[in-house]
Amino acid sequence: MTEQRASNDLWGGRYAEGPSAIMREINASIGFDRKMWRQDIFGSLAHAAMLKHVGIISAEDEASIRQGLADIAAEIESENFVFSDALEDIHMNIEARLTERIGEAGKRLHTARSRNDQVALDVRLWTRDAIDGLDRQIADVMRALVARAAEHAGTVMPGFTHLQPAQPTTFGHHLLAYVEMLSRDRGRLADARRRLNESPLGAAALCGTGFPIDRHMTAKALGFDGPMRNSLDAVASRDFAAEFLFACAMCVTHLSRLAEEVVIWTNPYFGFVKLSDAFTTGSSIMPQKRNPDAAELVRGKTGRVFGALVGMLTVLKGLALTYGKDMQEDKEGIFDAAETLALCLAATGGMVRDMVPQPERLKVAAGAGFSTATDLADWLVRELKLPFRDAHHVTGKLVAMAEAAGVDLAGLTLAQMQQVEPRISQGVFDVLTVDASVRSRTSFGGTAPANVAAMAAEWQEKLA
Amino acid sequence: MTEQRASNDLWGGRYAEGPSAIMREINASIGFDRKMWRQDIFGSLAHAAMLKHVGIISAEDEASIRQGLADIAAEIESENFVFSDALEDIHMNIEARLTERIGEAGKRLHTARSRNDQVALDVRLWTRDAIDGLDRQIADVMRALVARAAEHAGTVMPGFTHLQPAQPTTFGHHLLAYVEMLSRDRGRLADARRRLNESPLGAAALCGTGFPIDRHMTAKALGFDGPMRNSLDAVASRDFAAEFLFACAMCVTHLSRLAEEVVIWTNPYFGFVKLSDAFTTGSSIMPQKRNPDAAELVRGKTGRVFGALVGMLTVLKGLALTYGKDMQEDKEGIFDAAETLALCLAATGGMVRDMVPQPERLKVAAGAGFSTATDLADWLVRELKLPFRDAHHVTGKLVAMAEAAGVDLAGLTLAQMQQVEPRISQGVFDVLTVDASVRSRTSFGGTAPANVAAMAAEWQEKLA
Amino acid sequence: MTEQRASNDLWGGRYAEGPSAIMREINASIGFDRKMWRQDIFGSLAHAAMLKHVGIISAEDEASIRQGLADIAAEIESENFVFSDALEDIHMNIEARLTERIGEAGKRLHTARSRNDQVALDVRLWTRDAIDGLDRQIADVMRALVARAAEHAGTVMPGFTHLQPAQPTTFGHHLLAYVEMLSRDRGRLADARRRLNESPLGAAALCGTGFPIDRHMTAKALGFDGPMRNSLDAVASRDFAAEFLFACAMCVTHLSRLAEEVVIWTNPYFGFVKLSDAFTTGSSIMPQKRNPDAAELVRGKTGRVFGALVGMLTVLKGLALTYGKDMQEDKEGIFDAAETLALCLAATGGMVRDMVPQPERLKVAAGAGFSTATDLADWLVRELKLPFRDAHHVTGKLVAMAEAAGVDLAGLTLAQMQQVEPRISQGVFDVLTVDASVRSRTSFGGTAPANVAAMAAEWQEKLA
Amino acid sequence: MTEQRASNDLWGGRYAEGPSAIMREINASIGFDRKMWRQDIFGSLAHAAMLKHVGIISAEDEASIRQGLADIAAEIESENFVFSDALEDIHMNIEARLTERIGEAGKRLHTARSRNDQVALDVRLWTRDAIDGLDRQIADVMRALVARAAEHAGTVMPGFTHLQPAQPTTFGHHLLAYVEMLSRDRGRLADARRRLNESPLGAAALCGTGFPIDRHMTAKALGFDGPMRNSLDAVASRDFAAEFLFACAMCVTHLSRLAEEVVIWTNPYFGFVKLSDAFTTGSSIMPQKRNPDAAELVRGKTGRVFGALVGMLTVLKGLALTYGKDMQEDKEGIFDAAETLALCLAATGGMVRDMVPQPERLKVAAGAGFSTATDLADWLVRELKLPFRDAHHVTGKLVAMAEAAGVDLAGLTLAQMQQVEPRISQGVFDVLTVDASVRSRTSFGGTAPANVAAMAAEWQEKLA
Repeated sequence: MTEQRASNDLWGGRYAEGPSAIMREINASIGFDRKMWRQDIFGSLAHAAMLKHVGIISAEDEASIRQGLADIAAEIESENFVFSDALEDIHMNIEARLTERIGEAGKRLHTARSRNDQVALDVRLWTRDAIDGLDRQIADVMRALVARAAEHAGTVMPGFTHLQPAQPTTFGHHLLAYVEMLSRDRGRLADARRRLNESPLGAAALCGTGFPIDRHMTAKALGFDGPMRNSLDAVASRDFAAEFLFACAMCVTHLSRLAEEVVIWTNPYFGFVKLSDAFTTGSSIMPQKRNPDAAELVRGKTGRVFGALVGMLTVLKGLALTYGKDMQEDKEGIFDAAETLALCLAATGGMVRDMVPQPERLKVAAGAGFSTATDLADWLVRELKLPFRDAHHVTGKLVAMAEAAGVDLAGLTLAQMQQVEPRISQGVFDVLTVDASVRSRTSFGGTAPANVAAMAAEWQEKLA
Repeated sequence: MTEQRASNDLWGGRYAEGPSAIMREINASIGFDRKMWRQDIFGSLAHAAMLKHVGIISAEDEASIRQGLADIAAEIESENFVFSDALEDIHMNIEARLTERIGEAGKRLHTARSRNDQVALDVRLWTRDAIDGLDRQIADVMRALVARAAEHAGTVMPGFTHLQPAQPTTFGHHLLAYVEMLSRDRGRLADARRRLNESPLGAAALCGTGFPIDRHMTAKALGFDGPMRNSLDAVASRDFAAEFLFACAMCVTHLSRLAEEVVIWTNPYFGFVKLSDAFTTGSSIMPQKRNPDAAELVRGKTGRVFGALVGMLTVLKGLALTYGKDMQEDKEGIFDAAETLALCLAATGGMVRDMVPQPERLKVAAGAGFSTATDLADWLVRELKLPFRDAHHVTGKLVAMAEAAGVDLAGLTLAQMQQVEPRISQGVFDVLTVDASVRSRTSFGGTAPANVAAMAAEWQEKLA
Repeated sequence: MTEQRASNDLWGGRYAEGPSAIMREINASIGFDRKMWRQDIFGSLAHAAMLKHVGIISAEDEASIRQGLADIAAEIESENFVFSDALEDIHMNIEARLTERIGEAGKRLHTARSRNDQVALDVRLWTRDAIDGLDRQIADVMRALVARAAEHAGTVMPGFTHLQPAQPTTFGHHLLAYVEMLSRDRGRLADARRRLNESPLGAAALCGTGFPIDRHMTAKALGFDGPMRNSLDAVASRDFAAEFLFACAMCVTHLSRLAEEVVIWTNPYFGFVKLSDAFTTGSSIMPQKRNPDAAELVRGKTGRVFGALVGMLTVLKGLALTYGKDMQEDKEGIFDAAETLALCLAATGGMVRDMVPQPERLKVAAGAGFSTATDLADWLVRELKLPFRDAHHVTGKLVAMAEAAGVDLAGLTLAQMQQVEPRISQGVFDVLTVDASVRSRTSFGGTAPANVAAMAAEWQEKLA
Repeated sequence: MTEQRASNDLWGGRYAEGPSAIMREINASIGFDRKMWRQDIFGSLAHAAMLKHVGIISAEDEASIRQGLADIAAEIESENFVFSDALEDIHMNIEARLTERIGEAGKRLHTARSRNDQVALDVRLWTRDAIDGLDRQIADVMRALVARAAEHAGTVMPGFTHLQPAQPTTFGHHLLAYVEMLSRDRGRLADARRRLNESPLGAAALCGTGFPIDRHMTAKALGFDGPMRNSLDAVASRDFAAEFLFACAMCVTHLSRLAEEVVIWTNPYFGFVKLSDAFTTGSSIMPQKRNPDAAELVRGKTGRVFGALVGMLTVLKGLALTYGKDMQEDKEGIFDAAETLALCLAATGGMVRDMVPQPERLKVAAGAGFSTATDLADWLVRELKLPFRDAHHVTGKLVAMAEAAGVDLAGLTLAQMQQVEPRISQGVFDVLTVDASVRSRTSFGGTAPANVAAMAAEWQEKLA
């Protein structure tokens, strides 16, 4: 085999057939939109019931349609349905099969409906289902984080700024920071759900219809808060898709931050946490090597979700109303982003449950680097009433003295300290240990173990 | 002057000074963060009042700080404040000036606070103010659209799919589609506002503080719903910034769609609307040429808002907690996106008010291309009980017959029609005119002028 | 079926199995990397030949490997190869099958090689093949454009700025503008190809190897210009992927501009070109409606290519050396972008060959709107030696006079013109027609038909 | 001051004046395009010289223009030029001043030119200058890297995959990986420069001109390879801008990878390198804390360059030819990306020169984790002729044995090893040390210090 052949093979023949091959490729969405088969059937059932209710079709026709669609659902579920490229999309595949099964009645189903409002409906329903699934998954990750936070409310670790140890914090407090982020991510998904939860069905091709349909009835049957108020908007808008993609992008960004930390924490020089074989891959040759593949993949997959968001916004930019074929590009991005985020959430939840923090290592690290210097400065302000900026000055001198002496702040004698500031008293030593430092930070939201434990308990209750 | 010189000049000298010049450039944010001076002072006033309330500073100090900050605000407002690059950012510029003016008390202001929570606070406050301003502007554009929609509830125009005329609609109905989109944009901004409306103040550097501060008090004074619940999250998170940028991106995308339409509509072959000189630019040489610059610019500026969103997400991707210097990149994107959207909204509102639809042109266009074919098909279903798919088949034949005869659908005789489908009766002619078509689409959200007028009235009330 | 069920089904069970299901999903790339099977075998053949050459494996082993790989290629090509998820990727699938077929020798193939350099090699080879295929396709589109340009070198049409007619140009000239853009797109792909055309093979895991391999030999056998010079770079870099994606994004952007024009040109109010059924889709009900689906899809698909580019850049941002699992995200974006661009090129080439410009319509449009005003101004400068800015002033007055009189510029009498500028002579009428205008623009690259014909001929020769 | 006031102030008044204020804001580009004053004058000088040469203007006029422009250049350089918003852009600002200074001749300068080709020219020239400046800066960073690589060709450090130590490499080898990346970045900029280096001047408004201009002459005078071949393309294309932005994005991505490593390396648990105060910022209170601000900012600024790229692509997507106001959005992105990259390169070069690797720390780290396991496996293949996959199996057993015994591989006795594989001989110990490992990897591009030193020398010569 030669390079030439590889290349020819890929690009040579595919469109050799000419325009028909190209247009088939352009028009056929059945390869991906079949994912929406449940939503399509769900929508048709509601539509048929409404058509019967207002007298557009007979009760017999509706019963026949209902049964036909149920049968088709069973066929698809059992993988006995033959999808046809020639029928282009999931809508025509199901409708054609329905007419094949039930005859004339099948031809009446599409009355007062168009592919434009039908596809808008299906994508909305799929997205809404995805939101519900993702919401459950985020809640699950939050529960995992909260459980570990409760367990490690008092496990001291270094708090970082600029990836430099700054002040002691606790492992539990750190994990709860992600609980907050994920909670907002759920909020964004919930807001997106609420905003998209209006029914486009009944907008027909673009202008609505003269049939006496009842859009409120179908909206209700499909779990919507009501029908959309403008038919052109109903078929032309995809902001719900972009908003969903943004919510996914934001959530996976948060996961990528934790993933980065897991990668760093499991590096042997950090050694902050251990992951089991379940979430790492080894090397056949270096059994001690544990590559944090799951964390890296979560971090890497952030890119494709950003890409899906950018893709959707690009499609919509400068697009004249109403429906344009450009909008067929809405689906794959949504599908891929939802599935990517689902995988990343599963991986993150798994890692959070799996990881074993190393308390001794964390505590030693927390104490290094004069990490209680701010505690000292605060003591000077509180006890000696030094202005904040002056207290900082004194603290700087004491740290320099300790550094020169090769000791920690607590390693200085009281006499040494008094050389810098004569009013310093024995009490200062109470704030110089790592444990004292974290214990002292009792301001609301602060890192004191009691705070952390209480906050974890509060979250546990909320998430129960 | 030579090319070489131009180039040298740009890149030669700037960093010749070495590291100090580079670090000054990297660290100095005063060039852009001075935009937040009001927010910085607003935050400091609340912080000082709280420090007094809990007894950390004296009433005298607080009064002195309050007066000092008021004086500084006056200085900045009157452009008498000298911003210093050496003091790096707006926070230190103001604090240094305060100490210069009021002495010791100024040094106490920063007690129990850190630049980390201070900057997080200021950006939040600025963003919240921006949301409020943009919300008012969007509402204004909506009012403009609704007013024009009410005026043109019955002005027939072609409704497009694929930029091909599809069915008659009305100018008012078309404008109301944008009202719906913008309404959701307001919803997104409102949700973002609600979600960001928690106070980071009191998170201090990252772990909270041992001072007995009252975060609920400052939160309330600053108009927040409460304090953030986790100090690490408070200093490390910028999802509020990304969410704001997404809301802006979505809104400007909607504006770009209308802008595209304005560009197309004002093209002479369309001639759907005219814009006055106020929103076009001419040519000194071709006075009849009216370039829709405002619309094009709105469309083009979409790019920079997308860019700001991508930039912010990129900054946050894989960023370990808590504060990193990377996060200094949050501000300029927010500022630029907010100001860009403000300009685009002003331009759009102006164009909407300015534009003069051309009813005759719109009506002629609406009637072309057998645009009432779906009305005919629906009539066949409704009156003759043909199944939908069969009605489509019959309609196709009638359109082909009309096309061959060089007439419109209404130009066929009843006899001709009956050749195709014998049961067609005189009543069919009632649905074949453009006016009848739009009048008939009375389904909820449909294009019937009565619907449009009612919906416009409903919006007018909501937006009053 | 209920909404609940749809949702459960999607998200419920998939990862219920726990970590193993998650890690399988994370690690298994065989679902997409099987596309690289030819490249993988091509690389292994070169590697084995080199191992034999330097004496690391025997001639018998090499022969056996060669035969084995040929057999596997035949199996895959005839779809008789069973891909295994458990073997994770295309590399292990092929290697395992090889050992199954030829025994011990198969186990020696991976000597002095690692999955890290192997995958870097395969992706490079695949990308290079894709570039070659796309380059041929772009050349084909260029040929189509050039042929139509030659045909329509003198077909007058309006030249637009701001989508407002500005000056007469020709259809051929307009099409040649795209030839220039696509030519640069080919240049970008060629540059990307040249830059990526270095072999990573032999970098092994990351540090090179102690085996006496000959990287120059494998590089040559695989068509590379030479081996990469740094082993860490070889396994850690993916800028070639991002560069390829950018080249694709730029090209599809150019296609999107032409696609927008096709959408506008085929709108009936423009009526500049007609597309046959081959590249439009109709409506069962409105047979005259020809939706430019192909053009819209090209325009819409721009989004996903932008997305792939953003995705890749995001993956690489801030990624520590050398290989990280994040980099597994390089492939799908490349595959999708290449295939998307291939489809868009096929569609564009098809449309260009298919479209029928409407010369009368174009000419009438070209003459409207005082489109020869600049010709008049230039005449004033050239013949009467008016300074450019003064000539513009005079022209403006004449246009206003014509507009008031409801005639075109050529409709003014000489006497009328002389009221504005007494020195105007009969000769001015030679420049006021559309044909005279385009004929006059003979500056290099200008729109004069002779220029256009010559340029088209030049391109035809280059592309032959 | 209240929140309300802050908000009102920002959004209230700005556009209160109405359309005129909006259009002024939309049209005035002088605020940013003044950066191109040198390029504008450079272009005008070439244009005037050509106009004289072909006889369109007199020698006197040309001399007068030349002198006038030189005077204006001096005014701008000495900051004595008054820029006017009313004159909108840099082109009109300079032309108006010219006419003010030299009268009639000034009005002749714009003959056979339009703002459309003028602005296209200026942006191209500015971008070309930026490329030249950035190219010099990248070369400088490469020199810094190469110098450090030469110095540390033999300084052993751990090579990472997945941020887990994998095999020993050297600090010099690691730095040279970046030299390769940056070299490709220079290549991309050079390719972009070559591709953009064609002159749009003479395309006039869009169709060329009837004046007998000599575009080859101006092209040559301005350092271009020749004139662009199609006038519509000349005014409508901005792919050069997008390509430049991509080249910047790719380069800053590479810098972001090194920046991430610097952040990680300077973390105390790594302690691989130290940065001086010149590139870190401390804390007034924790003098030992050295925040790698410069590195973080480089990493963070990646976002805005990605944003500029996305912005430009978005502007161009679906934009009908030729010039549209949208394209005014090309400049600020280019300016910002160029300046951002310039700063990031300066910071990176500075850090590279500044950083002090810690050899002992690096060596200890390099030896940990059975990092020579692959060397052992390779020895088994080479000396005992085990098939590669079997050698891996044996190595895995030996590593497990060592791990159980709490020793390194070299800590096993020969007897212990022979329990696993009896044919292992004393020679194996030669490959088990870190130094032996790196020394052995002599394959081209491998990490052997001799290789690294030679490669560094080669680069030093190339970059001299």
